[in-house]
Amino acid sequence: MRDRDFETSLQRFREDREHGASEIARAALRLMADCARKHDQDTTPRMVEVFRARAAALAGTRPSMAPLYNHMTKWSASLENLPNDPVMAGQLAAEAAEELARQSRLAAKLAAARLASRVPPGAAIMTHSLSSTIVELYRILRDRDVTAIVSESRPLCEGYVLAAKLDELGIRTTLVTDAQMGLAISGADVVAVGADSILADGRVVNKVGTYLLALAAREAKKPFYVCAESYKRCPAGMPDPPMERMDPAELGAPVLPGVTVVNAYFEITPAALVTACVAEDDGIA
Amino acid sequence: MRDRDFETSLQRFREDREHGASEIARAALRLMADCARKHDQDTTPRMVEVFRARAAALAGTRPSMAPLYNHMTKWSASLENLPNDPVMAGQLAAEAAEELARQSRLAAKLAAARLASRVPPGAAIMTHSLSSTIVELYRILRDRDVTAIVSESRPLCEGYVLAAKLDELGIRTTLVTDAQMGLAISGADVVAVGADSILADGRVVNKVGTYLLALAAREAKKPFYVCAESYKRCPAGMPDPPMERMDPAELGAPVLPGVTVVNAYFEITPAALVTACVAEDDGIA
Repeated sequence: MRDRDFETSLQRFREDREHGASEIARAALRLMADCARKHDQDTTPRMVEVFRARAAALAGTRPSMAPLYNHMTKWSASLENLPNDPVMAGQLAAEAAEELARQSRLAAKLAAARLASRVPPGAAIMTHSLSSTIVELYRILRDRDVTAIVSESRPLCEGYVLAAKLDELGIRTTLVTDAQMGLAISGADVVAVGADSILADGRVVNKVGTYLLALAAREAKKPFYVCAESYKRCPAGMPDPPMERMDPAELGAPVLPGVTVVNAYFEITPAALVTACVAEDDGIA
Repeated sequence: MRDRDFETSLQRFREDREHGASEIARAALRLMADCARKHDQDTTPRMVEVFRARAAALAGTRPSMAPLYNHMTKWSASLENLPNDPVMAGQLAAEAAEELARQSRLAAKLAAARLASRVPPGAAIMTHSLSSTIVELYRILRDRDVTAIVSESRPLCEGYVLAAKLDELGIRTTLVTDAQMGLAISGADVVAVGADSILADGRVVNKVGTYLLALAAREAKKPFYVCAESYKRCPAGMPDPPMERMDPAELGAPVLPGVTVVNAYFEITPAALVTACVAEDDGIA
């Protein structure tokens, strides 16, 4: 992959509003696998140098998403001791990236299965935003008579995409505006959201609106679960990631000289509002 | 005004999504004044009978809005002891309706002035939905260097209308999605919202999303004021008004067989979350 094509890919990652952190991190691994299979460097050390620079650039596209950083860091570290033959080295590097993506997908499924075991049959599960891990949760529970309460998740309304997925799964779904979350919580038995990152002290980075839902859940005495594979944990000692803001034009609000439109995508929910953060490993809080 | 024309007016009241409870109640008084000036009943008792039936029908169009009920009830009660001359009686009935509308407007301004005295100069005042009383508050404070934080208020985004009004007033405004309210509260000094009704025990009926903002304000230790003239109080002993739901199509969500779209407009915020409910009279809670 040429530098120019890679730049185009970086831009695609920066602008992706459709996918959660898990899927974006896996897409980054697939992109690096693709780079590794098709590289044209003539020595292994040069190849590794290029890959590490690209992995770092990819990690930088979505600073709010720890799994992207974690996978890119882990993959870069795996590029030690590759064979001298750059073609063989590229093949191995690609396989390493693909293996990490598989592990990540499996971890998300295992985390969802662990959370599923805590959800009573017939429960109304409320969520906010679109998380592939939470889709997995609903998939696991589809035959246990659960229903869903889904918020729009403005500005781009990923909730509509989730509602369509749930409809395909045959799960009866109630769709509400984000402002209705405090009202709709009364009909929920359990709240379950994904995460973009889990900070070292247990605070949760997720789509903006998650904090309001967590406040409403606490007030209504409903459990508030975060389901996130271990790859989403930020290393201890790392400063809080910057919370990404997107183009204000996404809101479709009128443009007025004295009015500043803010389009923050992520926010941090305190650990104290989280009943349990469920991962695939023993890191259940 | 003929029955058919009055029916059309009723439908306009039912479908009004632009105006808050104060303005709708005043518009109802103006409509009744108009009916009274142009009536064609040949006796005063017949005229009063028709007016009372119409006032009751108007009150029923927006059950979540106490001021509409209160003004219609008060006006109906004022139709005792009118002169036998039906033309003169109609004039007096019209003047009574217009006087109530004036009182209501003045009460809202006085309530806003009372709240204004509690807001420190330079404060960032956060609000949700579009309230004519809160616009009055901003107008009073426009020369005291206040700024505004305004949420969209989906589905119809009255927040955009408010932002435009604030822009005209020369008040610097930050506009956010409803989901960002929990994040934006950190930049606010004071929260101030209007109300559709104040229930007898102090609970507040207002646009959906108000409860989430109140939860966020309490968590952030910011005062949460409700500004509402006394006409918004529900009589003691009255059952809670039904919370209106509007056409789900307003959301613009995809139509799917297993997905129920809910478009609740109003919700009740508990009195415990309200720092003070400021009216024009001594009913400050």
